[in-house]
Amino acid sequence: MKILEERIKKDGIVLPGDVLKVNSFLNHQIDPQLMMTLGQEFARLFKDDQVTRVLTAEASGIAPGIMAAYCLKVPMVFARKKKPSTVTDDVYTAEVYSYTKHVTNTISVEAKFLHKGDRVLVIDDFLANGEAAKGLISLAEQAGAEVVGVGVVVEKAFQGGHDWLLDHGYRLEALASVKSLKDGKVEF
Amino acid sequence: MKILEERIKKDGIVLPGDVLKVNSFLNHQIDPQLMMTLGQEFARLFKDDQVTRVLTAEASGIAPGIMAAYCLKVPMVFARKKKPSTVTDDVYTAEVYSYTKHVTNTISVEAKFLHKGDRVLVIDDFLANGEAAKGLISLAEQAGAEVVGVGVVVEKAFQGGHDWLLDHGYRLEALASVKSLKDGKVEF
Repeated sequence: MKILEERIKKDGIVLPGDVLKVNSFLNHQIDPQLMMTLGQEFARLFKDDQVTRVLTAEASGIAPGIMAAYCLKVPMVFARKKKPSTVTDDVYTAEVYSYTKHVTNTISVEAKFLHKGDRVLVIDDFLANGEAAKGLISLAEQAGAEVVGVGVVVEKAFQGGHDWLLDHGYRLEALASVKSLKDGKVEF
Repeated sequence: MKILEERIKKDGIVLPGDVLKVNSFLNHQIDPQLMMTLGQEFARLFKDDQVTRVLTAEASGIAPGIMAAYCLKVPMVFARKKKPSTVTDDVYTAEVYSYTKHVTNTISVEAKFLHKGDRVLVIDDFLANGEAAKGLISLAEQAGAEVVGVGVVVEKAFQGGHDWLLDHGYRLEALASVKSLKDGKVEF
């Protein structure tokens, strides 16, 4: 998406270690008008896929996830990184290693919010190594749901997640696909 | 709001210890159409307050926060519960004790996303003891911003946060105000 690429060029900051910081409009401070535009684009891309539920992970996936779900008129579920003490029901869990934070999180979704027969659209803000996407796909498939695709706002196409998803037969839609962050420059 | 009270009566679950579980539509699975309606209501309530920024906390505050910010056409900032390793800049921090999870979290916002002169609307999903609201107010006030009010989707009016905010001169708007959860019954 042109508008997103331009915003990344304007406001994104490249840090050592191939880190692209877009927290002034995407995942700390958020531009809600841009986020709605991204949600509309996800909805357009997956409009013929009979999506029944959007699945994302806290915290950064919630904003694009809810806008996509709003435009698709389906519920959104976000996986939690901790099992809250008020959960008394069955949960699906998956392990997700974060290369940025160097920790493994267990993400979980209550079983009653993902069903056999669901057609799940996985949404996240970033795709890098694909660990979060793999975890979310696992949650959906444990429930017997079908993953119709993975939509991410920004992918770093050179970091493994992109290839893993395609190699395993999943549809991937990245609204901005970063090919390189060499020398502090974002190339799409 | 009638529509919200009806939904809480229909889908809310009361657990021992005055816990009201609304995670089938508000903070685990989310109904995005309802959330947009709530965002519109927050925007209506604060339309004359020259809000420049919506401030909330991850993870459950993000959905109502972004819808309110979308309707008010201002940026949203969500406070993080951990300082991510990609943050290299100055941050404001506040301690927030969770009575539900029995842990103290440090919430933080990068200093560049809250400014002197900002007119901040604090949004959260729940108000109980008010710990999260106090922490968010502290972040805004550390920045020299003015808190124009606190908007919450649901308040448990009997648990201290409501009185604390009013006693300290803050405007509070709760879209549903729960007066009692006695005997497993929700009373507004």
